[in-house]
Amino acid sequence: MENGGKKLNNGSSQQFETPTNITIKGILGLLMANIDSNDERRIISLGMGDPSAYSCFHTTVVAEEAVVDSLRSEKFNGYSPTVGLPQTRTAIAEYLSRDLPYKLSPDDAFVTSGCTQAIDVALSMLARPGVNILLPRPGFPIYELCAAFRHLEVRHFDLLPEKGWEVDLDAVEALADHNTAAMVIINPGNPCGNVYTYQHLKKIAETAKRLKILVIADEVYGHLAFGANPFVPMGVFGSVVPVLTLGSLSKRWIVPGWRLGWFVINDPNDIFRNPKIVERLKKYFDILGGPSTFIQAAVPRILQQTEGVFFTKTINILKQTSDICCERIKEIPCISCPYKPVGSMAVMMKLNVSLLKDISDDIDFCFKLAKEESVIILPGLAVGMKDWIRITFAVEPSSLEEAFGRVKSFYHRHSNQQIEY
Amino acid sequence: MENGGKKLNNGSSQQFETPTNITIKGILGLLMANIDSNDERRIISLGMGDPSAYSCFHTTVVAEEAVVDSLRSEKFNGYSPTVGLPQTRTAIAEYLSRDLPYKLSPDDAFVTSGCTQAIDVALSMLARPGVNILLPRPGFPIYELCAAFRHLEVRHFDLLPEKGWEVDLDAVEALADHNTAAMVIINPGNPCGNVYTYQHLKKIAETAKRLKILVIADEVYGHLAFGANPFVPMGVFGSVVPVLTLGSLSKRWIVPGWRLGWFVINDPNDIFRNPKIVERLKKYFDILGGPSTFIQAAVPRILQQTEGVFFTKTINILKQTSDICCERIKEIPCISCPYKPVGSMAVMMKLNVSLLKDISDDIDFCFKLAKEESVIILPGLAVGMKDWIRITFAVEPSSLEEAFGRVKSFYHRHSNQQIEY
Repeated sequence: MENGGKKLNNGSSQQFETPTNITIKGILGLLMANIDSNDERRIISLGMGDPSAYSCFHTTVVAEEAVVDSLRSEKFNGYSPTVGLPQTRTAIAEYLSRDLPYKLSPDDAFVTSGCTQAIDVALSMLARPGVNILLPRPGFPIYELCAAFRHLEVRHFDLLPEKGWEVDLDAVEALADHNTAAMVIINPGNPCGNVYTYQHLKKIAETAKRLKILVIADEVYGHLAFGANPFVPMGVFGSVVPVLTLGSLSKRWIVPGWRLGWFVINDPNDIFRNPKIVERLKKYFDILGGPSTFIQAAVPRILQQTEGVFFTKTINILKQTSDICCERIKEIPCISCPYKPVGSMAVMMKLNVSLLKDISDDIDFCFKLAKEESVIILPGLAVGMKDWIRITFAVEPSSLEEAFGRVKSFYHRHSNQQIEY
Repeated sequence: MENGGKKLNNGSSQQFETPTNITIKGILGLLMANIDSNDERRIISLGMGDPSAYSCFHTTVVAEEAVVDSLRSEKFNGYSPTVGLPQTRTAIAEYLSRDLPYKLSPDDAFVTSGCTQAIDVALSMLARPGVNILLPRPGFPIYELCAAFRHLEVRHFDLLPEKGWEVDLDAVEALADHNTAAMVIINPGNPCGNVYTYQHLKKIAETAKRLKILVIADEVYGHLAFGANPFVPMGVFGSVVPVLTLGSLSKRWIVPGWRLGWFVINDPNDIFRNPKIVERLKKYFDILGGPSTFIQAAVPRILQQTEGVFFTKTINILKQTSDICCERIKEIPCISCPYKPVGSMAVMMKLNVSLLKDISDDIDFCFKLAKEESVIILPGLAVGMKDWIRITFAVEPSSLEEAFGRVKSFYHRHSNQQIEY
């Protein structure tokens, strides 16, 4: 059966080949493999938006108890409807409606296995031969990978660092054609740490309306805003343009491993939603594994009863750690931060390799840093921007301080600026 | 944006239209909607393989405690690798290796969100333009639905009721061509309740080898065998032909809502497995939501420590309820059972509508039965066989007795055999 094998390898069409996309987890795995096992210091990862290992970022007891009680009740060991438990859909619709000028229906909310599955649902629903989708650069590479598997053409528009990482709307207008189905925004921003203003979101909505495309709003970092701009959900503009909102418990409740997310249709004027679309969506959910029923059953209590003090605590730590980032980076001349983060858990920083004597680019920087300092930082190329780096600051403050100390030593060792010594 | 809507509806290629497949959950939903709300009797569903609501089918305390402890440890709130936690992959490989003549590696096992996601992984990995897959009839319609979404052509071979629902291997040989990638078997059988002998599985393996196709072995009902034939995993023949084994905790542990399944490559001769396939698989897992990390972390304890008495109890109840089915059906002349079930949780029974005065077919039978008797039974058409019905006997014995009493009344009311009165 080189044959069975043959059949599996020699796809006749290029689109059915294995996608060559870089993935964040793939690169982080390679960086981890590059750590020097003789280095006795602990490994510090500023690589991934998952701070759950740090005790200061543990989830709330309300959420944990809700899941334990749900499991212990023995009422939720069975299948749920593939689109989600009715009470879970209701709770998600009510939770999101708090911040909207209209009320979502439970039928608008579909429960997914984390935001990742919500991304797949959105892209799979749009995929048609010839259709394209507009993605931000820098962005989140699961979109590109998913588009490749689902045979959806990708076109990139830039986010503008000099404008607080706002969407380059002129680029969006130039890229879109009659085969463009949607544009994606991630707000609060991953990997940039920005939070869009009401005015900018309104412009995005108006542009999308003019172009006759949907907006996919990835709000997995929803409410994690700690600067001047409050978090405004894109769904606020659902009456201007249909918005598909993707979200989850993962970041705000710091439980990414629970895999509880949502795909929500914000479309108060029934422009996108129609019986055919809904039928197709429901059938698509029938082939997905979906999230655990007992975790779903805990969602109403989690969304309704989590105390504000838990959210405030997270926001305060993220503000503190983002401040540490921006302060400590000033001591490292080869790295600069064009825009101080005000949301999410990550920030993009510019790498100036011309100040380094033996570092060729962001990839080289991150691999040597891992080897020499046991610090993991994501090369910007992984999110679409060469010679930038993405730093996740959702890390215990003392670990973050230590990491920057090591990056500073690394810089001094590799600097070509003799004057600094 | 009739436009956005337009783009989403008018796929240029037929294969991108909404699949028209019947789904079990879809039909069961329609049947439930047909229940007479004035009927004060409880609704009894013999429609779905999920007995978790009945106390005699509650899961073991070992499994429940393992999950609670895993959650309470606060070590597993974060992301797992998308292919699964290493300890979970190891535990699954060891669990399945117990019944194999060779040892699986942890790298052979991928953790999925229930068996449903394992089906999607298998079919998505095989999908290529022009490629086809051979599916059993009767079967499990998620395969057809998934194949439609992933653009994989489906061809059906029959299972033979007169031969204990064995695969019609002549039909398999006739259907396969150079574009056939795999054949699917479901053993223990859903919807037929059969358990294949070692000899028949060997013949399947030899046929697949000759045809140079893979075998996808859906063993979600693995070990649920209570007749003369012991359960033999298809992986036993992994050195004859590569086998992709799909399984889960769902049925044997009676926790379908936990969504913990596996996709396992049985290929001791490395015929199917190669770096390209593995790379593609891993990338595919990156776009899937996957199962909860803390449930994954509980799997080693669940697989290693579940007491035999729990399994025996389930087997004994299933044997008892399948006996009730076969006995009680004898009182209902319009239904006959060509093959007494010896495994899984379901059985196919033949419906003879010629004995009924006002029932046109299996669909009509099931809808009228729901309305008049508040009993839900799946029409055979939903699994590919008109004028048959699928009865799930994983139901509390007293409920099953009551259900058959109601079916008997229904028969007498609709019988055209005056002689019986």
